Amino acid sequence: MTAGQPLRTDPPSQQRRHAPPALHPAVVPSYPPPESDNDESWVWSQIKAEARRDADAEPALASFLYATVLSHPSLDRSLSFHLANKLCSSTLLSTLLYDLFVGSLAAHPTIRAAAVADLLAVRSRDPACAGFSHCLLNYKGFLAVQAHRVAHVLWAQNRRALALALQSRVAEVFAVDIHPAAAIGKGILLDHATGVVIGETAVVGDNVSILHHVTLGGTGKAVGDRHPKIGDGVLIGAGATILGNVLIGAGAKIGAGSVVLIDVPPRSTAVGNPARLIGGKKGDDMPGESMDHTSFIQQWSDYTI
Amino acid sequence: MTAGQPLRTDPPSQQRRHAPPALHPAVVPSYPPPESDNDESWVWSQIKAEARRDADAEPALASFLYATVLSHPSLDRSLSFHLANKLCSSTLLSTLLYDLFVGSLAAHPTIRAAAVADLLAVRSRDPACAGFSHCLLNYKGFLAVQAHRVAHVLWAQNRRALALALQSRVAEVFAVDIHPAAAIGKGILLDHATGVVIGETAVVGDNVSILHHVTLGGTGKAVGDRHPKIGDGVLIGAGATILGNVLIGAGAKIGAGSVVLIDVPPRSTAVGNPARLIGGKKGDDMPGESMDHTSFIQQWSDYTI
Amino acid sequence: MTAGQPLRTDPPSQQRRHAPPALHPAVVPSYPPPESDNDESWVWSQIKAEARRDADAEPALASFLYATVLSHPSLDRSLSFHLANKLCSSTLLSTLLYDLFVGSLAAHPTIRAAAVADLLAVRSRDPACAGFSHCLLNYKGFLAVQAHRVAHVLWAQNRRALALALQSRVAEVFAVDIHPAAAIGKGILLDHATGVVIGETAVVGDNVSILHHVTLGGTGKAVGDRHPKIGDGVLIGAGATILGNVLIGAGAKIGAGSVVLIDVPPRSTAVGNPARLIGGKKGDDMPGESMDHTSFIQQWSDYTI
Amino acid sequence: MTAGQPLRTDPPSQQRRHAPPALHPAVVPSYPPPESDNDESWVWSQIKAEARRDADAEPALASFLYATVLSHPSLDRSLSFHLANKLCSSTLLSTLLYDLFVGSLAAHPTIRAAAVADLLAVRSRDPACAGFSHCLLNYKGFLAVQAHRVAHVLWAQNRRALALALQSRVAEVFAVDIHPAAAIGKGILLDHATGVVIGETAVVGDNVSILHHVTLGGTGKAVGDRHPKIGDGVLIGAGATILGNVLIGAGAKIGAGSVVLIDVPPRSTAVGNPARLIGGKKGDDMPGESMDHTSFIQQWSDYTI
Amino acid sequence: MTAGQPLRTDPPSQQRRHAPPALHPAVVPSYPPPESDNDESWVWSQIKAEARRDADAEPALASFLYATVLSHPSLDRSLSFHLANKLCSSTLLSTLLYDLFVGSLAAHPTIRAAAVADLLAVRSRDPACAGFSHCLLNYKGFLAVQAHRVAHVLWAQNRRALALALQSRVAEVFAVDIHPAAAIGKGILLDHATGVVIGETAVVGDNVSILHHVTLGGTGKAVGDRHPKIGDGVLIGAGATILGNVLIGAGAKIGAGSVVLIDVPPRSTAVGNPARLIGGKKGDDMPGESMDHTSFIQQWSDYTI
Amino acid sequence: MTAGQPLRTDPPSQQRRHAPPALHPAVVPSYPPPESDNDESWVWSQIKAEARRDADAEPALASFLYATVLSHPSLDRSLSFHLANKLCSSTLLSTLLYDLFVGSLAAHPTIRAAAVADLLAVRSRDPACAGFSHCLLNYKGFLAVQAHRVAHVLWAQNRRALALALQSRVAEVFAVDIHPAAAIGKGILLDHATGVVIGETAVVGDNVSILHHVTLGGTGKAVGDRHPKIGDGVLIGAGATILGNVLIGAGAKIGAGSVVLIDVPPRSTAVGNPARLIGGKKGDDMPGESMDHTSFIQQWSDYTI
Repeated sequence: MTAGQPLRTDPPSQQRRHAPPALHPAVVPSYPPPESDNDESWVWSQIKAEARRDADAEPALASFLYATVLSHPSLDRSLSFHLANKLCSSTLLSTLLYDLFVGSLAAHPTIRAAAVADLLAVRSRDPACAGFSHCLLNYKGFLAVQAHRVAHVLWAQNRRALALALQSRVAEVFAVDIHPAAAIGKGILLDHATGVVIGETAVVGDNVSILHHVTLGGTGKAVGDRHPKIGDGVLIGAGATILGNVLIGAGAKIGAGSVVLIDVPPRSTAVGNPARLIGGKKGDDMPGESMDHTSFIQQWSDYTI
Repeated sequence: MTAGQPLRTDPPSQQRRHAPPALHPAVVPSYPPPESDNDESWVWSQIKAEARRDADAEPALASFLYATVLSHPSLDRSLSFHLANKLCSSTLLSTLLYDLFVGSLAAHPTIRAAAVADLLAVRSRDPACAGFSHCLLNYKGFLAVQAHRVAHVLWAQNRRALALALQSRVAEVFAVDIHPAAAIGKGILLDHATGVVIGETAVVGDNVSILHHVTLGGTGKAVGDRHPKIGDGVLIGAGATILGNVLIGAGAKIGAGSVVLIDVPPRSTAVGNPARLIGGKKGDDMPGESMDHTSFIQQWSDYTI
Repeated sequence: MTAGQPLRTDPPSQQRRHAPPALHPAVVPSYPPPESDNDESWVWSQIKAEARRDADAEPALASFLYATVLSHPSLDRSLSFHLANKLCSSTLLSTLLYDLFVGSLAAHPTIRAAAVADLLAVRSRDPACAGFSHCLLNYKGFLAVQAHRVAHVLWAQNRRALALALQSRVAEVFAVDIHPAAAIGKGILLDHATGVVIGETAVVGDNVSILHHVTLGGTGKAVGDRHPKIGDGVLIGAGATILGNVLIGAGAKIGAGSVVLIDVPPRSTAVGNPARLIGGKKGDDMPGESMDHTSFIQQWSDYTI
Repeated sequence: MTAGQPLRTDPPSQQRRHAPPALHPAVVPSYPPPESDNDESWVWSQIKAEARRDADAEPALASFLYATVLSHPSLDRSLSFHLANKLCSSTLLSTLLYDLFVGSLAAHPTIRAAAVADLLAVRSRDPACAGFSHCLLNYKGFLAVQAHRVAHVLWAQNRRALALALQSRVAEVFAVDIHPAAAIGKGILLDHATGVVIGETAVVGDNVSILHHVTLGGTGKAVGDRHPKIGDGVLIGAGATILGNVLIGAGAKIGAGSVVLIDVPPRSTAVGNPARLIGGKKGDDMPGESMDHTSFIQQWSDYTI
Repeated sequence: MTAGQPLRTDPPSQQRRHAPPALHPAVVPSYPPPESDNDESWVWSQIKAEARRDADAEPALASFLYATVLSHPSLDRSLSFHLANKLCSSTLLSTLLYDLFVGSLAAHPTIRAAAVADLLAVRSRDPACAGFSHCLLNYKGFLAVQAHRVAHVLWAQNRRALALALQSRVAEVFAVDIHPAAAIGKGILLDHATGVVIGETAVVGDNVSILHHVTLGGTGKAVGDRHPKIGDGVLIGAGATILGNVLIGAGAKIGAGSVVLIDVPPRSTAVGNPARLIGGKKGDDMPGESMDHTSFIQQWSDYTI
Repeated sequence: MTAGQPLRTDPPSQQRRHAPPALHPAVVPSYPPPESDNDESWVWSQIKAEARRDADAEPALASFLYATVLSHPSLDRSLSFHLANKLCSSTLLSTLLYDLFVGSLAAHPTIRAAAVADLLAVRSRDPACAGFSHCLLNYKGFLAVQAHRVAHVLWAQNRRALALALQSRVAEVFAVDIHPAAAIGKGILLDHATGVVIGETAVVGDNVSILHHVTLGGTGKAVGDRHPKIGDGVLIGAGATILGNVLIGAGAKIGAGSVVLIDVPPRSTAVGNPARLIGGKKGDDMPGESMDHTSFIQQWSDYTI
């Protein structure tokens, strides 16, 4: 995690189990605005170039690509349009959602910067990703996270009913259920994404990769700070369930199908049901970025993430 | 289970593995009609008050809240409207579904009473629940269960094609797949709900809490009574898989990620893959109601539900 | 696997870990065209008879049944209509998708034949299946596989942007995420189907049964051939996670909730997290067809698929 | 006009130019409820028989016919469904309108009786009418009048905003603009109907036939009773414009394209721009019922209605 | 009229008032199929070029242009798509209509040829027409006539319920009401088109131009052949009403707002309410093609068409 | 006309028949921006007060009123939302249109000012107008004119394809066909509006009232300046047809059903088919504002507007 995120990088053992999740502004992820808009400009130009190439090659998709990408002057307009048309319903009209997304993305450049970071992350980490436009248009995990960021801002502004309505639509349309109060960093990959559940007081650092069916859940009826805290660069395998206010240290790996109720130290690996720790310090490699699922197999012969 | 449900409380070992799932009327859940409509009136007045408060505070949501809640004279009309608009498709129009739900809820007061019991259950058990209206409008587990109750009545009336069509829409829209023949009690919490699968001959008691990705499945090709029977007050953790005509006794807890193929005695806890029993009688506490995921951790150091 | 599928039956240990997934035509599943169209004619006549019976018995469903089945001259028209109306969105119109499906099914009789084989498989294997029309109209796993077959053809024709858009819609609408490049055999049952994920270089043989929440995933950032190869007649239980370029031999069984990172020999059973092998050769029975989840329980007392 | 409509049959010269259009209950058309429901039952049985015949003969239309007619238990349900689906918009949902129509038709049997009278009138007067179901489903004039009757009741109940919203939808969808306060009798044929405009204080008697582009308009800015009063059995030709609080006597004919600003005596004919009277008493024939456009041609050689 | 249309060119005074409108195949317009498809190919290539130019210049419209024109392989596919999406409703789905239009245009090349002739006619006659694509996409008169041609074929095939349903949708969506039995030639311009009504036994020749609010109506209750017969090259001004089985000779002009109940000789002009003849033979000019509204003004000082 | 509109007030007899309709910027109506935004603020506050009153009184309409009015921060947002949802289609999405309207109204304050002037005009002139919100929400003439103003700006910006697409949607949805090049003043009332047609080179002054079925048409094939010029304060009765480049002087009245091909001097009245002039100078009264249809009746006994 970056220095700009003291809440999450302060010694977790001292604070995270005490305070209820006070919604002071710091809960809004603190990732800095894009340094020079260069990344955003470059990514947007790539997206348009890809969409133009695909529209030329595939007439059946051209209308879709013009509607979602090529008719828009900027990435945030394109994203707002796409989300509004995905998440609208007969009682929550697309124009209303479009207004909400355009306004939120304009007022919060950090959301735009995080979306760009996510696009860069997916592109570099997922070998099945065919381009930035593929991610923008087709990855329901990417779209769910962007909608969550808007819901998170609404929650911090105490517009909770609207934030919860947005969460609900994301849960229905993308099968991704992230509580608006949860704080999510940037450079996030939700791969496949179906069934991901992230609870109210969960915190997810930067450059984290989360596979489908992953739960960052609470431990029942307790109120207050009751969900996991995921450090930077963590990789969480498909179907892993992490419950309670535990800390998954930066650079840790959680094996697929694991059930984790304990703190996992940085750069270590937890696997199994119940999860136990295997391996240990492994250099500077960050698995959330390298997506290295396999290097520890030698240590634990019959397992994987 | 209550005294009113003899089918499910008779010694399970004697009957449940024999009879095919005869669809005599008793399969329709036997929860009594609301004693005096007091609960329903009170919950509905709360829902309207919450919706009015939110509509005043959030103009962007007011249209949605008037359409779904504030324009309706009663809870069953509001629920019917909301379900019809959620579940309709281009070939299954909202007006048709609305008619079906209004008619079913009017003819079967037990469905209305169960919906009220579910709302009370969610409100008291889920710390993330922001109000009755939040549950009514946004919890896809709640909505899926109400639609299932209507499908269950249709199934009992031998209107199976319509019941199956309804199941299919619920499975697509909410990602919750409950066979119309399955008997579900009242006071149910399906939290997050994505991926829940409940099979044809499953029976679920009252005051049960089921997390997402839970399967109450069969054991393959066998016909007849082949799915789990879940007692009153049971708590089933995220991702748990219970297979076959086994009995999970009243007040039992099933750990997250567990794979259960055996009977679990009342008030005991099963965890792991394959699941084994830990802990035992623990007083009168019903985990499905208390949502106590953690008290047994001392007994089994590295595990949770 | 049949003799017609050399790619998948050649000694897997020699080739599957080396070559990147070259998209030569052989990746298009090689199931033969229907021998005499007899199966297709017979299944279609059954579907129409069922739909007519249901339309007569249930006026509320008649409009739906005429729109989806009874107004169509053939199974492929009915399927194309149904898929187009399920998968369309505000930016991907139903008429465009209908054209795409009608054209693809006309040009590729093997897709039609595989759909018929799937219908026969579901009907014979799933005791909850109420008829062919039930499967055609209501099984999101069935519909997802048919849409995948069209996406797979598009991928092989290098129309990748359209193939990925189709995958994305299937992932959103049915919560089934199958990469267009994955090769899927015929006679497939995706039961319940929510959350199934099948990766880019996965190959699935004929007569395979896959329950919900099953992942055939990769092992991270590696490019090239990195997903499982599933032999003919395999049965994969709910929530199982199979990762990496491993071979699940013909007739093998994978237990529910298992996490598999190793090759599983033909007709053997793997269970647990991490999965270990139990049992062994068991005659000619193919569990993917018999759906026998229980016969090995004697060998492994507290487990199941 | 019948004896039951004193407001309209009292000497018009004495009252109609004075009183502002007081909205006492008598403005609600006074046509009696159906004597024995026989007409309604018979017409409904005919409609169903026609729809069943057409559904059998034309599979492409069967879904439409089941949705609009054959799935409904009664004429008023069928009509409510059809109107709701025609008049709904993205901000005025079909379920809301359906509720409104079902409720209004149930509370006001005179509206149902008038609809039946209209169906009988169209069937007997329009040689292009292919059956009752043809009128019910396809005549926008018929549908506009039925929606107006509901708007008229709402207006009389002082629910003016809703009445005006309904008028607006009818004007957009059917291009028929009838002010909710206008009183329309029964046995009405609006043939083709495009462009018909009927003002606030207009009164239309029973058994009137009105062709398209007909205006019953006011004379500008004046408030109060300022629109035409049309007697029973009147026939108004295409494009005729009748302006001001004039009385068109029972059984009169107004020629096509006429511009009428004067009273027209009973059973006489007015033609031309400006209209002048031709012909006179012509026996008991009521042109609004006989649709006799031609008998006066001998009197006025080069003209017609 | 051409030699290929004997029904309409036989001495009208002898036959047109006797025979009821027998629906033998000759009622299907007899315009020949395109001589070499050259016109169709050329017009289609022009439409695509225009659409491509506009899509490049106007990103906001590009999605629309790709969906309606540029993604289609041929004019009849583009037209079928556009009509299906215009005329569909919640009970008459676009895919069903698309199928109907594609099938009808494929089976009846004369409809395609007539559409091409209409496009050429509009382009050459209407100074406000900005191009072929403008007409194809935006002229509701053009679209209404094409849909009518399909309804006319259905009527001739005795598929009357479907033909009438199509007429009804055209009347609602385009405010153009053409009875399916009416025979319409080719090279037709319906300019502005709102409110056009053409009755059951009307016949319209080739190269006719009809402005908005024009009625070709019957004279009341009479059955049988009761609507106007319009010769080739006729021009009918806005708001003109022509009633009864009269013959408007080839090359005649009908003034705006006229009410015509008499035969009008070829190449003569009728104006006024009631209409009287002015002018006479005027050379070979065909006003339906030249759109000459003004040359007769010298003859009748204060009038126009 | 005001001094700010020289194009239209220059001696018309000298120029209007010569120049082709050069589209220099002056064609964009020159009405001044609102003097102090006071009118707009006041009208908007009235609209919100009316909508709030109606939402409180009529729960069935509250959702509609919140969606269209009460959730918006300004009149131009409300109008943009309402128009976008009215005019959208399956190939022209509401979000795209919303963007277009919001952007155009922001960039062109004169359009906003003209909309306010129209609202004030309708409110003061139409006795059937129940309030500003009634006009904003329900008057299709008002909505058509506002959409036209946006199309007119697009036309002037040479974005002709988009302008024509907008015209086409307005013509379909509201049955009002105004060419984007036509210049329309402010303070306009299009009452009932069905069937209004206004041609390419027409110019309409300020404070003009136009009833339904009015045509401002050309005279055929001629290119160039060929449509009527309507002075300030003109009143045009229902069904009137004005053809050719004639000048209707300020304060003139055109009778209902008239066919006008001649210049009409200021403050005079033209009636009949063909129209002739009756009456003459009548003081300072402007009929387009006073809606006085009746004062000239004494002069012409059997006629009206």
